[in-house]
Amino acid sequence: MARTVLPGGLRVVTEHVAGARSASVGLWVDVGSRDEPGFDPASRGAAHFLEHLLFKGTRRRSAQQIAEEIDAVGGDLNAFTTKEHTCFYAHVLDSDMPLAVDVVCDVVLDGVMAPEDVALERDVVLSEIAGRDDDPEDLLADDFDDLLLGDHPLGGPVVGSEESVAEMTPDVLARFHAAHYVPSRSVLAVAGNVTHAAVLDAVTAGFGDRLTLGDGSWTRPGGVVRPQVPADRLAVREDDTEQAHLMLGVPSVRRSDPRWEAQLVLSTVLGGGTSSRLFQEVRERRGLAYSVYSSTAGYSDLGVLSVYVGCAPERLGTAAGVLRTQLADLARGGVTEAELARARGQLRGEYVLGLEDTSSRMSWLGRRELDGRDSSLDLADSLARIDAVTRSDVAELAADLFATPVSAAVVGPYADADDLPDELREVAG
Amino acid sequence: MARTVLPGGLRVVTEHVAGARSASVGLWVDVGSRDEPGFDPASRGAAHFLEHLLFKGTRRRSAQQIAEEIDAVGGDLNAFTTKEHTCFYAHVLDSDMPLAVDVVCDVVLDGVMAPEDVALERDVVLSEIAGRDDDPEDLLADDFDDLLLGDHPLGGPVVGSEESVAEMTPDVLARFHAAHYVPSRSVLAVAGNVTHAAVLDAVTAGFGDRLTLGDGSWTRPGGVVRPQVPADRLAVREDDTEQAHLMLGVPSVRRSDPRWEAQLVLSTVLGGGTSSRLFQEVRERRGLAYSVYSSTAGYSDLGVLSVYVGCAPERLGTAAGVLRTQLADLARGGVTEAELARARGQLRGEYVLGLEDTSSRMSWLGRRELDGRDSSLDLADSLARIDAVTRSDVAELAADLFATPVSAAVVGPYADADDLPDELREVAG
Repeated sequence: MARTVLPGGLRVVTEHVAGARSASVGLWVDVGSRDEPGFDPASRGAAHFLEHLLFKGTRRRSAQQIAEEIDAVGGDLNAFTTKEHTCFYAHVLDSDMPLAVDVVCDVVLDGVMAPEDVALERDVVLSEIAGRDDDPEDLLADDFDDLLLGDHPLGGPVVGSEESVAEMTPDVLARFHAAHYVPSRSVLAVAGNVTHAAVLDAVTAGFGDRLTLGDGSWTRPGGVVRPQVPADRLAVREDDTEQAHLMLGVPSVRRSDPRWEAQLVLSTVLGGGTSSRLFQEVRERRGLAYSVYSSTAGYSDLGVLSVYVGCAPERLGTAAGVLRTQLADLARGGVTEAELARARGQLRGEYVLGLEDTSSRMSWLGRRELDGRDSSLDLADSLARIDAVTRSDVAELAADLFATPVSAAVVGPYADADDLPDELREVAG
Repeated sequence: MARTVLPGGLRVVTEHVAGARSASVGLWVDVGSRDEPGFDPASRGAAHFLEHLLFKGTRRRSAQQIAEEIDAVGGDLNAFTTKEHTCFYAHVLDSDMPLAVDVVCDVVLDGVMAPEDVALERDVVLSEIAGRDDDPEDLLADDFDDLLLGDHPLGGPVVGSEESVAEMTPDVLARFHAAHYVPSRSVLAVAGNVTHAAVLDAVTAGFGDRLTLGDGSWTRPGGVVRPQVPADRLAVREDDTEQAHLMLGVPSVRRSDPRWEAQLVLSTVLGGGTSSRLFQEVRERRGLAYSVYSSTAGYSDLGVLSVYVGCAPERLGTAAGVLRTQLADLARGGVTEAELARARGQLRGEYVLGLEDTSSRMSWLGRRELDGRDSSLDLADSLARIDAVTRSDVAELAADLFATPVSAAVVGPYADADDLPDELREVAG
């Protein structure tokens, strides 16, 4: 791992990956949908909209040229937006790393953002939102976040709403871009068969003049997740689906919390794999569902621990009852020594096996740097923190988290909350 | 690459991957949903059902033990079924390769298949089917295959139907297993930081006696894709979706056809990336859709070339018109020299970048061996075949394929075919 801070503030972090013939290049910007409401109420969905718009052309390249240059060398060029990060990336053969750096930086720092492209791309984003609406699991995840996080900046969907996208103006997008997409708030992360010096050459060659743009003075606003009254802990969206889709969960600890690793262990034991309590109880022993799992989301100021199950509508009550029992058991009894050992092994495997390819290593570098964690600390440090988790760490956290009332969102053939089975109202009561 | 055929017929193919710390182990069986109708009409969905059932326990391990043994070492254990292949696989740290081989072989060759587990797992498979039904794009893909392939053995969905799964008996499953899941029809493919000798040791240590089971005498039945009359070239499924989901396409050349690589180039130019004709015309220039692409499926006796677009229902006619024009342009004019060069670069990149991780390399080894292609031929051979494709190869194939009437399936807010826009009826006319 090598790290350089260029004049203007762009952080360049690279890692040589033995045996790789490729390079993954990511330009990470410290901006996401949570930055929108505090910036301008009219900017809801702007970060994701810009992820689209910036590919529509730069001063040097049309949209078609951007696509053609990377396709011609067999590369993959794309981007994604989360609530706290935006990443534009390319995966290419190692010898094409300079081209990838040039294209990715060009797109992010020098997009034209023409008003006529805003109009065209608005329809594409609306089509993406409609596609999300046609996937009950995706829709449910957004409904659940809205329910649990309310008007906290993290609460809205990354894509914005149909209304906010329909009303998005070129002016708002341009101001949002100027304020946020600046070198001082960005990290260029590269992993693969590359040298740090070659990456520095590539970025300074094409972008010397633009690397000092912007003041990067934005301070991310926080918010408060208000305690919810019982009536607000259950959201139902009527949809003519074959399955009932249920997500339930609680606010939990943030990414930098010392209990973060205990939370990973807790979620793993609860529903992290095929040996987890939920998989064994819901699927293996009862055949209630094909898909059941738990997951954690970690942000800079809070986290979310949630559970998903998709089952036949007539079995939703039974499934909800099982989930309730499983959460109560963990809150009361914690995890066994065997479960702790297995969860440690599982997390260790996910880290090590999940970081073999250059794209994952690039993401690891970029995220760690943006999160302000020391990216020179390697995998061994993360694994040591997982190995240090004790049974009492997990038991205390479980008791703490599941003392919070659980919130639940449902998508399925239910007109309203009165249609839902009693067991579900008891879980989210 | 090293290859050994063990007594009894199990083929073992391995590849050492430089720099890897993991091993991917896959037991590939030469069976898929297409083998069901010719075996027993009551076995529709049996290959996929067995993919579930075999994880429910072996003579040596319960379902929970299977899950726990792989989770404890941080591995990933799973399986998938296609129309022609079934693969049970594990991705583990290199030192755990012997365990992975033991578990994967145990599951496939020595499953208990208890009748009470058939009853339990039936509900899980039905839940999986209901989940597929809640995803319009997945549902559309199955509808399209049914439409295009009709009663050819490749025509039905891999998961079977609700009816066939509801009526599946332990006896049919046991007979299907005994006939097909035998060493002589299987390939053990391992890629990673492993030696061929160690893999051979692992498989012979635990399975010496079971490696000579079964006669493997099954001969896969073929079938005929009948020319369709115009009224049968358009299928519509009414669904209360936000988007209209459209797939259209034609039967095309099989995997072993000398024109296979020309077909890959054709599909790439048509809708294989962001510089493709469809992406540029449908999304970039017109903003008609977020998701538009083409794809190819290759089987042992035929192929399918198809195009997908998801758009606002009121724009379906326009989108269908654009697709029609694009297909007609390719049939009439073929591809340009620049497009050919770019498609070659793209396919080269997909092969090289797509084969960096041990899981992909394991799949490459397993598939090639099952398909009867010489798996000692490396990547260079495949790339040379792509580089040898000429403009006239592509033009001839395009003229040939798109002279066939196009079939189209739609999922969306349409009561029947009369509800669809005229432009779509013209495409699939």
